[in-house]
Amino acid sequence: MRSKEDILPECPVATTVSLIGSKWKLLIMRNLLVRPWRFNELQKSIEGISQKALTDALRSMEADGIVIRTAYPEVPPRVEYSLTEQGESMRPIIKSMESWGTAYKERMQEQRRR
Amino acid sequence: MRSKEDILPECPVATTVSLIGSKWKLLIMRNLLVRPWRFNELQKSIEGISQKALTDALRSMEADGIVIRTAYPEVPPRVEYSLTEQGESMRPIIKSMESWGTAYKERMQEQRRR
Repeated sequence: MRSKEDILPECPVATTVSLIGSKWKLLIMRNLLVRPWRFNELQKSIEGISQKALTDALRSMEADGIVIRTAYPEVPPRVEYSLTEQGESMRPIIKSMESWGTAYKERMQEQRRR
Repeated sequence: MRSKEDILPECPVATTVSLIGSKWKLLIMRNLLVRPWRFNELQKSIEGISQKALTDALRSMEADGIVIRTAYPEVPPRVEYSLTEQGESMRPIIKSMESWGTAYKERMQEQRRR
């Protein structure tokens, strides 16, 4: 059997991309870095995501050890998604995307004013 | 007509994701941050990318002002893709993905040794 390590790309950027390199996963990360979320909340907050796309992304992130799914035995049952320590350690990536996006929007506004 | 600014998402992370939030675009960025590349070189270097996916990604990045396509009037004609200043300013994002990927691979190797 091949271990996870064997199938990781040589390049560290490609390794990271293989784990969160998709629009939906990046937006899920952004949310989960703030606090744990419930499925329906996530779906409402991420514009355009389908139930299937969200399910697939969360399962894949769970399998990769980035996300934890916790079911609370309540009535009705409550399920929450949160980050593992490994997922939490991705904060600098999302932070750098946030800084870049903020600067980009400012440049666009600046250009518009002229 | 709606300007670029009108269609940008409220959230700065989502803005960045709308520009480079895909596996292929992130891997193209990684390459172009090193030096300008020719189309065929890029295709060979990015495992699994089809000609169509590479064309689409490059066109979209060109339209978004991240990539410049330069055609040199040689025989045979040479076409190179490079980053605009805007694209270049995304370096910290790819750097943070590189650091994370490096640390992740080290953790995986560590786990394996045990």
